[in-house]
Amino acid sequence: MPEFLNLLPPDEARSKWLGQVATPAHTVEWVPLEGACGRVAAQDILSPQALPQFARSTVDGYAVQARDTYGAADTLPGYLSLAGEVPMGAAANLSLGPGQCATIHTGGMLPEGADSVVMLEYTQTSRPGEIEIQRSVAVGENTIAVGEDITQGQLVLERGRLLRPADIGGLAALGILKVAVAPKPTVSILSSGDEVVASKNTPAPGQVRDINSHTLAALVSQAGGVPRLAGIIPDDFGSLLQAARAALAQSDMVLITAGSSASTRDMTASVIETLGEPGVIVHGINTRPGKPTILGAVAGKAVVGLPGNPVSALVNGLLFVVPALRKLLGAKEPAAQRSIRARLTINVASQAGREDWQPVQLRASAGELLAVPVFGKSNLIFTLANADGLIKIEPNATGAAAGELVEVLPIGLGDL
Amino acid sequence: MPEFLNLLPPDEARSKWLGQVATPAHTVEWVPLEGACGRVAAQDILSPQALPQFARSTVDGYAVQARDTYGAADTLPGYLSLAGEVPMGAAANLSLGPGQCATIHTGGMLPEGADSVVMLEYTQTSRPGEIEIQRSVAVGENTIAVGEDITQGQLVLERGRLLRPADIGGLAALGILKVAVAPKPTVSILSSGDEVVASKNTPAPGQVRDINSHTLAALVSQAGGVPRLAGIIPDDFGSLLQAARAALAQSDMVLITAGSSASTRDMTASVIETLGEPGVIVHGINTRPGKPTILGAVAGKAVVGLPGNPVSALVNGLLFVVPALRKLLGAKEPAAQRSIRARLTINVASQAGREDWQPVQLRASAGELLAVPVFGKSNLIFTLANADGLIKIEPNATGAAAGELVEVLPIGLGDL
Repeated sequence: MPEFLNLLPPDEARSKWLGQVATPAHTVEWVPLEGACGRVAAQDILSPQALPQFARSTVDGYAVQARDTYGAADTLPGYLSLAGEVPMGAAANLSLGPGQCATIHTGGMLPEGADSVVMLEYTQTSRPGEIEIQRSVAVGENTIAVGEDITQGQLVLERGRLLRPADIGGLAALGILKVAVAPKPTVSILSSGDEVVASKNTPAPGQVRDINSHTLAALVSQAGGVPRLAGIIPDDFGSLLQAARAALAQSDMVLITAGSSASTRDMTASVIETLGEPGVIVHGINTRPGKPTILGAVAGKAVVGLPGNPVSALVNGLLFVVPALRKLLGAKEPAAQRSIRARLTINVASQAGREDWQPVQLRASAGELLAVPVFGKSNLIFTLANADGLIKIEPNATGAAAGELVEVLPIGLGDL
Repeated sequence: MPEFLNLLPPDEARSKWLGQVATPAHTVEWVPLEGACGRVAAQDILSPQALPQFARSTVDGYAVQARDTYGAADTLPGYLSLAGEVPMGAAANLSLGPGQCATIHTGGMLPEGADSVVMLEYTQTSRPGEIEIQRSVAVGENTIAVGEDITQGQLVLERGRLLRPADIGGLAALGILKVAVAPKPTVSILSSGDEVVASKNTPAPGQVRDINSHTLAALVSQAGGVPRLAGIIPDDFGSLLQAARAALAQSDMVLITAGSSASTRDMTASVIETLGEPGVIVHGINTRPGKPTILGAVAGKAVVGLPGNPVSALVNGLLFVVPALRKLLGAKEPAAQRSIRARLTINVASQAGREDWQPVQLRASAGELLAVPVFGKSNLIFTLANADGLIKIEPNATGAAAGELVEVLPIGLGDL
């Protein structure tokens, strides 16, 4: 197969490819609530009950019948007889009649007969058993009605939702202590390249330690997958095919990082073609770094060939592997990329017609955030380790100018 | 202690409080590289070696002595005799003399005598054993020098660094497979309030299930701590003091979420005062939600009293508990808050003199990101679950106007 016959723009490449990647059958994993944050809901969750289940006071004060307070003011207070106190955590054993009120605390259950609460600040005890009301309230004022948070049967969390701390709280409030989540996809990572040795080895002259297995494993874990390191595969077609076939059988996605020479990249494409249909879907993407990235699929499972160059492998992991994991998890598209706006400090050149991703460091300066480009050959891993994020230079631009506001895509962790 | 004697602005409250919280003694935890991503480096890491350890080619082509190519051009090529090929993953068993070149692949080790590489595109085989060179190269061109990525002894990762995938790759490249990281702080979470029952229970009239233990546990986990749920504590001073004292002995930080009534909040303050010195440092913060938050410390350990209201507890967890965890981890301040810029859709009112945090939903619309305020009483957990983030309204503002660009602080997860 001739390389780079047709370089697709990254977005087009991704969507063409993901169209051939199937979301796995509707298996679910039940996890306890304390393990559900960061997982993706695999089913719609409907509320088994109303929330709250009883009308509650939102303030400290006196539960009343609103009509008994009409016209009450500092200068012309009303007077209500105190029928008792609503205990916290229990129903009041009293029922308010006209002209009556009851002491109530924030969160307390509205007693029978009451429809609103007058805040403590606008009352005083005029004499034992009698409360002076200095302000009128409307029906429902200073209360939460039954079902005001959630009604029974209401959809509280949609399938595909990435669960956050507030969601966990909402489920706890409803007594839902087990959650059906999408199982974590297993992603096998194969490294090839005659010059690559396992990181635990001391490289001989001409050899380098494996980097890509480790960066991609970290990325896969962060994106909700389970990495499975298949090790360094000898640089011949038969060995790579055998290892890739085994990996495909054992996992939901396969990543093959090539060695740095062109021959191993070509071999990856041939292996993906041989594994099965449809095989290679995109070979060559109009982006830098990442031109030699290969996007393939075999029987609905994603198989990706990533460049050996560690910067390129990680950037393309962000651009392609992470969205594929989202699809496998059935996760809904996030409304917003978690990008960070910063001011570019110096001009960055880019070749027109190609989408460039430039590593930048973020620095706070005089209340403003600066994006400082990190230059360095793209095969230097510490170039990327020194960067906090990437800025995208659109294909129709020939660069980005100093002083421009740019959107920085953080590399790796959310809490940059 | 009278409540709300003096409401401090949030930033001032935080810094006054954190000054009394000690970063734990320099214990470290050694973790394997595959478990290090997302942890905080507990020691400076120096490189044990140069990277790369040998000069490498960055292209496919011919290794040469640059001076042999001077003046070479399409119209006036030079001719070099082919001395052999550099195998991938090994040193070449050849040494280039003047007038010689050797086939080399991307990532290959520069042979002895070579100082640069001519790209394959600018060469052709003129006759067997002879290569035509159509372009000159400078010394070092198309190569990476020894130590160009990292020199031996260089600081590669600083103590306090939150480790990211690229860092993991850099460590793998250096053969560093165990990393000293900050141990995860243990955070005990106590719930109080007579109306609060464990989430597994069916609430009786007047009772509500515990929400705050769960939201705060999720938040603590995300921020790198280990939550320890101490359960629902009966709403009396003796029980709460005993439970808080036990929690303090067993953990690095203690969170006490009050019930919703004022009496349990006051009790929390008294308990913190009784636990030890300095006790309550800030009682009452000029923010909404969160006014009744209590920031305390006992013998260097943070003890926080959070409002019972679940929205308030979670927002104040973000504003105070997360920064305290960063301090316990010894994590360096991030250069940038991971905020998201969006356009506010409608006016939001705020009381001047107070810092307000308004929940918003993010929506993409016509290439722009919109921040849609989510209104709802602040004790409704699903109000917060429906929001993607919070916008801050500065104390000197009386609100934010529709059409304004606002910074949205994501709630909870990084990969919103």
